[in-house]
Amino acid sequence: MINPTLVELTRGRSVESKHCGAYAVSDGSGKIVMSAGNIESPIFPRSAVKAMQALLLVESGAASTYGFGNRELALACASHSGEQKHAELAAQMLAMAGLDQTNMECGTHWSFHPNILIEQAKLGVEPSCLHNNCSGKHAGFLCVACHCNLPLHGYVNSQHTVQQEVARSLEAMTGSKLDMDLCGIDGCAIPTYAVPLKKLAHGFAKMATGEGLTSERAKASKTLIDACMAEPFYVAGTDRACTKLMEMAPGEIFVKTGAEGVYTAALPTLGLGMALKIDDGATRAAEVVIAELIANYMEAEGPIAANLKAFANRELTNWNGDIVGKITASLQS
Amino acid sequence: MINPTLVELTRGRSVESKHCGAYAVSDGSGKIVMSAGNIESPIFPRSAVKAMQALLLVESGAASTYGFGNRELALACASHSGEQKHAELAAQMLAMAGLDQTNMECGTHWSFHPNILIEQAKLGVEPSCLHNNCSGKHAGFLCVACHCNLPLHGYVNSQHTVQQEVARSLEAMTGSKLDMDLCGIDGCAIPTYAVPLKKLAHGFAKMATGEGLTSERAKASKTLIDACMAEPFYVAGTDRACTKLMEMAPGEIFVKTGAEGVYTAALPTLGLGMALKIDDGATRAAEVVIAELIANYMEAEGPIAANLKAFANRELTNWNGDIVGKITASLQS
Repeated sequence: MINPTLVELTRGRSVESKHCGAYAVSDGSGKIVMSAGNIESPIFPRSAVKAMQALLLVESGAASTYGFGNRELALACASHSGEQKHAELAAQMLAMAGLDQTNMECGTHWSFHPNILIEQAKLGVEPSCLHNNCSGKHAGFLCVACHCNLPLHGYVNSQHTVQQEVARSLEAMTGSKLDMDLCGIDGCAIPTYAVPLKKLAHGFAKMATGEGLTSERAKASKTLIDACMAEPFYVAGTDRACTKLMEMAPGEIFVKTGAEGVYTAALPTLGLGMALKIDDGATRAAEVVIAELIANYMEAEGPIAANLKAFANRELTNWNGDIVGKITASLQS
Repeated sequence: MINPTLVELTRGRSVESKHCGAYAVSDGSGKIVMSAGNIESPIFPRSAVKAMQALLLVESGAASTYGFGNRELALACASHSGEQKHAELAAQMLAMAGLDQTNMECGTHWSFHPNILIEQAKLGVEPSCLHNNCSGKHAGFLCVACHCNLPLHGYVNSQHTVQQEVARSLEAMTGSKLDMDLCGIDGCAIPTYAVPLKKLAHGFAKMATGEGLTSERAKASKTLIDACMAEPFYVAGTDRACTKLMEMAPGEIFVKTGAEGVYTAALPTLGLGMALKIDDGATRAAEVVIAELIANYMEAEGPIAANLKAFANRELTNWNGDIVGKITASLQS
């Protein structure tokens, strides 16, 4: 099955590049209410399922033991830009469990956001594991391990109890059996399991609605989604798509990016979940498609739809600031 | 026409992302000796035609008037990383014509190469037009304007004599009529004209062989291609694909990247030209396909083919250095 073109970039009057992909929109019952392309084949969700991976942090009692509020929970669900506030909060989370960055097994990288990187390099900041975009998730894993008296070393391995429990949450939320044949290693060293888009969308609809979940899991889901929507800066950062999209409709839009062109969304007021993958892995395409897709479900003439559509369809400029073309998302449903 | 998948990225045992595209390999007569996908529709070559855009610098006599050698000519054909040596040489080129960076109209940006950017930010270097990846090309245009007593201001505009002459060179080399309907503005503010891949490949085969060119143009073509192959650092920079690929077979391989997933090549010893475009604009895909394509024409068991194939098909690691997957190019011819 060939996936449709969801994004076009023009230069002058011609299309210069295009991105194909697939997406699914599900309600809480698992009914696919809208889709395009192949939503049956497993794709790696990467960081787009961090909110599901963080369920254990809440359900184990670790989050309440260590006094984590919205910011800490948002950071546990984040792919952040490694700004000072992100790194400091990750360190504070670890400190609550008596741990520090030497316990982290996620590796180190400079911020993916050029302006943050430049600012930090100018200031002489050297990135550590705390600046890794996944540091909040890893702090969460370590807090669970500490709270549950599990070994700390090797907490990233697929056989460690933390990762086994995280996989069990993912399996239950998506209804997709997680197979070691479909298991890869993520950028931050933890396992990532491929899941069909329609099941990812259903999982996020369940997070949005609580439908089909135990009351404990429904509450944990709502706690995490609400935390992210309340503290969108801690889910991504300055000038980042996840943060900007959630700020457009506080309490109505949860979104999360994943590497290689993945995006997920949960819309609690509409009871919908969404998942998309761009075939070629381009983030620039994934973030405009999720905005266009959410806009499609907002009041057509309202300001939220207008802001989302302006994000999804915009002019592109060169180094002199001259308009040279545009990027356009279309749903091809 | 749907272009074939030329590149796959795997994670674990599964394909995570893929890139479609098209390519053409031409001999000096314009005969297409190998191709895949749509090579008839115009695509924007962007910086992949800088060597053709630099013909005017040599043919006008400006290059010899100002005493430009291989390094200066390589820089005129470059999309460099804005390293200190690149910026200094661009400044020297301008100084030979009594000009400086205030004459440049290309805009300013930080190096696209993260390690260079980090090093410069740490050292307190602030990027100027001289660091723009196109600064050598712009220095060349300004030197032509100066040498020919043309206005300096507005040298980037499509109506300026420099850009008109550059367009004439491109039209003659590719045999493709350049239409204002197919004209866009490039990142550095000059016009870029869309040309079919088969004509771009033919143009680079003409540069490689001199076939069908006046002796003056054949000589200028050889001078430029030879300069790039002699000084590959000045065409790109540290750890860059163009530089590394040309270093694999000194004097046998000329390659040049263009934004949005374009690559061109000229192989003088084989008399071939190549051009490719990745549909989605991904550089990571374009650079492995050009390596695989050139490897296909090298001695099968020899070290050059082995090095090119190792570049085109390699393992991918995460932040901890663990192998998580691989990138693979295939020609689908």
